[in-house]
Amino acid sequence: MMVPPAVGLGIDIRVLAEQEGMSARIAATAVGHYTDADAVLAFARDVDVITFDHEHVPQDVLKQLVGAGVPVHPGPHALAVAQDKIVMRERLTALGAPVPSWGVVRDRAELADFLEAHGGAAVVKTPRGGYDGKGVRVVRSADAADDWFAVLDEAGSGDGLLAEELVDFNRELAQSVARRPSGDAVAWALVETVQKDGVCAEVTAPAQNAGTLVAEARALAFSIAEGLDVTGVLAVELFETRDGRLLVNELAMRPHNTGHWSIDGCVTSQFEQHLRAVLDLPLGATDELAPVSVMVNVLGGPASGSMLDVYPAALAAHPDVKFHYYEKASRPGRKVGHVTTTGGDAGETLARARAAAEFFSS
Amino acid sequence: MMVPPAVGLGIDIRVLAEQEGMSARIAATAVGHYTDADAVLAFARDVDVITFDHEHVPQDVLKQLVGAGVPVHPGPHALAVAQDKIVMRERLTALGAPVPSWGVVRDRAELADFLEAHGGAAVVKTPRGGYDGKGVRVVRSADAADDWFAVLDEAGSGDGLLAEELVDFNRELAQSVARRPSGDAVAWALVETVQKDGVCAEVTAPAQNAGTLVAEARALAFSIAEGLDVTGVLAVELFETRDGRLLVNELAMRPHNTGHWSIDGCVTSQFEQHLRAVLDLPLGATDELAPVSVMVNVLGGPASGSMLDVYPAALAAHPDVKFHYYEKASRPGRKVGHVTTTGGDAGETLARARAAAEFFSS
Repeated sequence: MMVPPAVGLGIDIRVLAEQEGMSARIAATAVGHYTDADAVLAFARDVDVITFDHEHVPQDVLKQLVGAGVPVHPGPHALAVAQDKIVMRERLTALGAPVPSWGVVRDRAELADFLEAHGGAAVVKTPRGGYDGKGVRVVRSADAADDWFAVLDEAGSGDGLLAEELVDFNRELAQSVARRPSGDAVAWALVETVQKDGVCAEVTAPAQNAGTLVAEARALAFSIAEGLDVTGVLAVELFETRDGRLLVNELAMRPHNTGHWSIDGCVTSQFEQHLRAVLDLPLGATDELAPVSVMVNVLGGPASGSMLDVYPAALAAHPDVKFHYYEKASRPGRKVGHVTTTGGDAGETLARARAAAEFFSS
Repeated sequence: MMVPPAVGLGIDIRVLAEQEGMSARIAATAVGHYTDADAVLAFARDVDVITFDHEHVPQDVLKQLVGAGVPVHPGPHALAVAQDKIVMRERLTALGAPVPSWGVVRDRAELADFLEAHGGAAVVKTPRGGYDGKGVRVVRSADAADDWFAVLDEAGSGDGLLAEELVDFNRELAQSVARRPSGDAVAWALVETVQKDGVCAEVTAPAQNAGTLVAEARALAFSIAEGLDVTGVLAVELFETRDGRLLVNELAMRPHNTGHWSIDGCVTSQFEQHLRAVLDLPLGATDELAPVSVMVNVLGGPASGSMLDVYPAALAAHPDVKFHYYEKASRPGRKVGHVTTTGGDAGETLARARAAAEFFSS
């Protein structure tokens, strides 16, 4: 999704992809794995700046890039925080950002203690490699994470799991900002997100009836971006608690699903802004193009065939909806695309976006 | 500029380009010349539909494609009208479309007669191969087209030149429509265009104070698209005469410079719509995203370097402007990019777009 704004701005984008035929293939210029330092370094020789569409590039690869004089945005020190959920909690706590009550648990006994101290329920997370709800589990008994403890024991690293209080939230919000290496930063509208099974399902921009949370979320995201020296787009996923406080749930240091609405709903999309930011170009205006934008993910995709097969019916029914298809085969729960539409009323706009996405459900 | 919407919709776009390193290279999949039937046919074996970003593909190549069973949009019969300005005038006249008074002149004597009948001035055009003012000349004496007559004589084809009355117009307008093979068609807003030296320089959408011309232009463009069986985008360039009539100046059967404002100013851009139309997919809404959109071409480009070199200053000064750069080297008069911005007032928006484009002038 960075290709369209790169074409628009006339920026030559090159993609290192793990294999031919991935959804990034339209601009793929090299095939190689992001854990293969030689492949990444060879690819980097030809470019002005390196950025990422996920946070899993190993630190030693990142550091070799920096050592070779390649500008890397976000940098290794920032990405380290997004790569490990325990490090993230430590750094956010040190920055004074509001987070759920948390602790590191290394065995069943420590988890039992955490559960007892937090009303008998906790969210347990593997520190690394999780996404879209993977590596996240709500537990209500001390033996419910035995399988993960066993894996840690086998590794013998002494690492633990992250345990967090189960937050009683009113709704989930997300605040994206973009920051240049020079320090300039801009924010998009605070948005409301709805997760289903740990996966982002719907986003409404701006979040309705958010009152003073709008300014709070913006200040919080800016302070995190600056505190962690994030360059490029930073998405801050937030809980709005029942008593009206914000708590930081997760961070993503890249254009994020909760910001896809900006492609069709903003003067400058998160993908164009990310390109500008990592190239240290002046950032674009983040004004909304309509009173309300709604994004609904297409999860799973049509039972047979691809979204393209359903286009004749879906596009005819919804001429005012923007359809995005990632050219991925249908698979239950997989994000294969999204739809966005804009309108004057949040409820009406959401209903229209849902109806459009419904065409692609299995 | 068809690549971004193709990425968005998940449509696999392939490009036959004349050489490596052209501005279409981001998606270039084959190198070959559009006059080389073998190259075009080989390229076509792998695609579902063929379309064009100019009208100069020879009829025999087009007909071989159709003969090989390849869907071609717009089709050879429609493109034939866009390829020859005399054929265009004949067909428009037959359709009852309002056009400037015109005639075919084969020598100096015929041009003298035409000048005498039209107040001593005429616009003379070579029927084929012209664009951006090339092959168009205002003449006020019968010997002013001798060089072109000499070329025609040498070819010995008996062809003539197109002579048209020099229209005393109030302003120039353009009306774009898109039409599917099945016949469905949609129109964008009527726009006002300003030409400099025969090249489109500025577009304001919608045309201000156009009154009943809005409906007239729309009906006219639809009737031309249907009458000529155009598929894809059709741009109709119009004169608004001093006495308030519309006259058809030129036709373009492709996304056209006068429609570039739609990329940032409409729910569905002309490039996305062209893809939908040639694939016979339902057409998207053409609603404007703001009261006014203005596009200003970047002609020539920076005296040294490329638009990218000027981005730091230009983007900083105009965070709300969308910059488009075609990755072409600067050259006097050459279209190397365009800027678009939206606003509430035509004058203010035009001033802002002009100021942004000014950063790139030599």
